[in-house]
Amino acid sequence: MARKTGSHSQITGPKIREQALQLFARHGFAAVSMRQIAAAVGVQAGALYLYTPDKEALLFDLLKTHMDELLAAWAEAPRGTGPMAALEAFVRFHIGFNLSRADAVFLSYMELRNLGPENFAMIESQRRAYETELEDILKTGQQAGTFLIPDTKLATMAIIAMLTGVTTWFREGGRLSRPMVEDIYWDMVRKAVGA
Amino acid sequence: MARKTGSHSQITGPKIREQALQLFARHGFAAVSMRQIAAAVGVQAGALYLYTPDKEALLFDLLKTHMDELLAAWAEAPRGTGPMAALEAFVRFHIGFNLSRADAVFLSYMELRNLGPENFAMIESQRRAYETELEDILKTGQQAGTFLIPDTKLATMAIIAMLTGVTTWFREGGRLSRPMVEDIYWDMVRKAVGA
Repeated sequence: MARKTGSHSQITGPKIREQALQLFARHGFAAVSMRQIAAAVGVQAGALYLYTPDKEALLFDLLKTHMDELLAAWAEAPRGTGPMAALEAFVRFHIGFNLSRADAVFLSYMELRNLGPENFAMIESQRRAYETELEDILKTGQQAGTFLIPDTKLATMAIIAMLTGVTTWFREGGRLSRPMVEDIYWDMVRKAVGA
Repeated sequence: MARKTGSHSQITGPKIREQALQLFARHGFAAVSMRQIAAAVGVQAGALYLYTPDKEALLFDLLKTHMDELLAAWAEAPRGTGPMAALEAFVRFHIGFNLSRADAVFLSYMELRNLGPENFAMIESQRRAYETELEDILKTGQQAGTFLIPDTKLATMAIIAMLTGVTTWFREGGRLSRPMVEDIYWDMVRKAVGA
């Protein structure tokens, strides 16, 4: 039994997350039923409850997976030596990672309100950990005199908002390629921190 | 009859918009019923339909009113002489206007998906008109050699995303006052455009 449930989860888990993410992003968390998600996955509604206790747990799973992957990918990203190289690496990493997960980014900003207090606090702390990664780079560069920043906390929030914004307008095959967009944003960020 | 409907609309219109905005922002458009909005306003659900034909029309009304007010307020905002003064005026205006309407800003990014194609196109064109206001400032400054910008379109999107982001974290009575936040963001934007 345990084995069967386990292998069932392994097969449908990613598919459930993928379908739930798409449906939540398109229609909103509140508008989507567990039944609809099950139909999109191609299973009975009952099978969904083998994977997740309820819809909020599924939303939390999506947001947590997104943050886990973001933090893990950044931990492994190459970042050269010194604050300037680290900042450039962060800019390119953040744009690239988020562009490949626009639905999850949208959901992360939109549906936080549907998490219970504990789950909300968990996602918030992961988000803060990620922001701290950038702020540490800015502080190091500020102390080294590489960057000229009046407030590293606000610079962190400003840079992340600026970079994340790319997900709202970028279209593959549009006027600019991803590397060109990365170059232009890096130019603006570099100047914004006075480097 | 017409007169009565008219005066009814004048009294409840702003109150309906206010309550609908709060409910949509808190729970999501899909999760809120016309009945809930009516209850929050303190009228019968039937009275709501004197004001608006349906829930999507009400959402459109909210997003359209937000854009109308944004464009009108910017048209009247003082902006000094030359691209540098105009850019500073835009930065301060955008932060100030959006901070006083955080719910409407949240809704404008989130619930566009719930508009029909015609209504969507209308809001999109207003948004583009607003973006063009900033891009024109950037182009003028670029041509005058005041700004050093590799791509005015991307700079426009980057600056708007950066400034709008303030609504997601700013709390009245926090570490920094609004004028201080405006000063710091103006410093970053000015540097980002190479001025």
